[in-house]
Amino acid sequence: MRTDFHRQLDLLNADLTAMCDLAATAIRRATDALLHTDLGAAEHALAGIEQLRRLNLNVDRRTLSLLARQAPVAGDLRAVVSAVQIGADADRMGGLAAHVAAAVRRRHPAPVLPTQIAPRFAEMGRIAASLADAAREVVLDGDPVAAARIRADDADMDAQHRLLLAALSTPAWCHGTPAAVDIVLLARFYERFADHAAEIGRRVIFRSTGANTADTQATPADTLP
Amino acid sequence: MRTDFHRQLDLLNADLTAMCDLAATAIRRATDALLHTDLGAAEHALAGIEQLRRLNLNVDRRTLSLLARQAPVAGDLRAVVSAVQIGADADRMGGLAAHVAAAVRRRHPAPVLPTQIAPRFAEMGRIAASLADAAREVVLDGDPVAAARIRADDADMDAQHRLLLAALSTPAWCHGTPAAVDIVLLARFYERFADHAAEIGRRVIFRSTGANTADTQATPADTLP
Repeated sequence: MRTDFHRQLDLLNADLTAMCDLAATAIRRATDALLHTDLGAAEHALAGIEQLRRLNLNVDRRTLSLLARQAPVAGDLRAVVSAVQIGADADRMGGLAAHVAAAVRRRHPAPVLPTQIAPRFAEMGRIAASLADAAREVVLDGDPVAAARIRADDADMDAQHRLLLAALSTPAWCHGTPAAVDIVLLARFYERFADHAAEIGRRVIFRSTGANTADTQATPADTLP
Repeated sequence: MRTDFHRQLDLLNADLTAMCDLAATAIRRATDALLHTDLGAAEHALAGIEQLRRLNLNVDRRTLSLLARQAPVAGDLRAVVSAVQIGADADRMGGLAAHVAAAVRRRHPAPVLPTQIAPRFAEMGRIAASLADAAREVVLDGDPVAAARIRADDADMDAQHRLLLAALSTPAWCHGTPAAVDIVLLARFYERFADHAAEIGRRVIFRSTGANTADTQATPADTLP
């Protein structure tokens, strides 16, 4: 019985790992699409999201089935309950990557970004993908120290986000308000993507140690430039 | 044993109902603060969020305890697992209301909104609070028909959001890019607040019927103006 339970838990965790992997791939493709006005990369990013959605439904089903049939307790129970939340975070990361890709598709063949601002998005895309990779690793190995590091790296994204909004709010901004509207939303998608990766880190700490660390939502003061 | 379980479930649901109530109050106060550049209302909105946070931690604790000690199945199990997700949605609604209030505090004594755009935010605030009220009702009574209606009402918010972004993106916009940056983010907070209320509706449908309805995330195409 216990052996069967742990095999089921491994399958659940394999789904979660795959979901983080798909989220990382989606944000890489979406960022490529954004930087190179590449419609193919945008479509590619959007196509991967369906699989993420299906895996998340799978995670929800597996979780209910495990709870109903095995009635786990303590660390095993935390692992099962955390799976629902980690799945939801990874699913949302995919949704945010899809928003980026959809923006590229919508504006194509025009680029969404003025050249001047592209390097900042290249950096935000790099951080986002690296955070999703890190989330995948800690979901796999449960290392609470590495999980805590994700939250620290999320601060890099917050800094990039603030710098970007500040750049849009200076008189030097010469690309007009419509371009800024797109950019504010896109930047917000990257920033939230990183928040969800950090949230997965927090869930893994809880799963591994039982400690419910302070929440990782951006403090309100950080939100506007 | 069963009686004790259902008493515990009632307490859990009372916490969730209180959380939706706090989210509704927070977005009402934050919208008042925004429309009247009212620092007191902003501080008031922010103060209510702490209680929401504490209730959410309480929900997580109660849920784990119920699962560990009572090992519920079928509809009872769905009710307990849904509680974690509904709590997370209501908590996030509070976080988004806090973002609005924090924006008012940050810009005070200057208003965040140009007068021209204020009526749109008054309407978005009204819809958001009414969706949180509706979420509270369906959490309380579990009515799947009313829960489905929340999702329909969320479409009104999406429409308002699109109109607002479109208004910022026309040559008629005369308040400059910095004001637009604030407005894009604020509008996004209201739109996401409504999404989470709709998500609570979806969870209640699942809790009441076992049906996992299609997800309520904004379709990517809806995101940019």
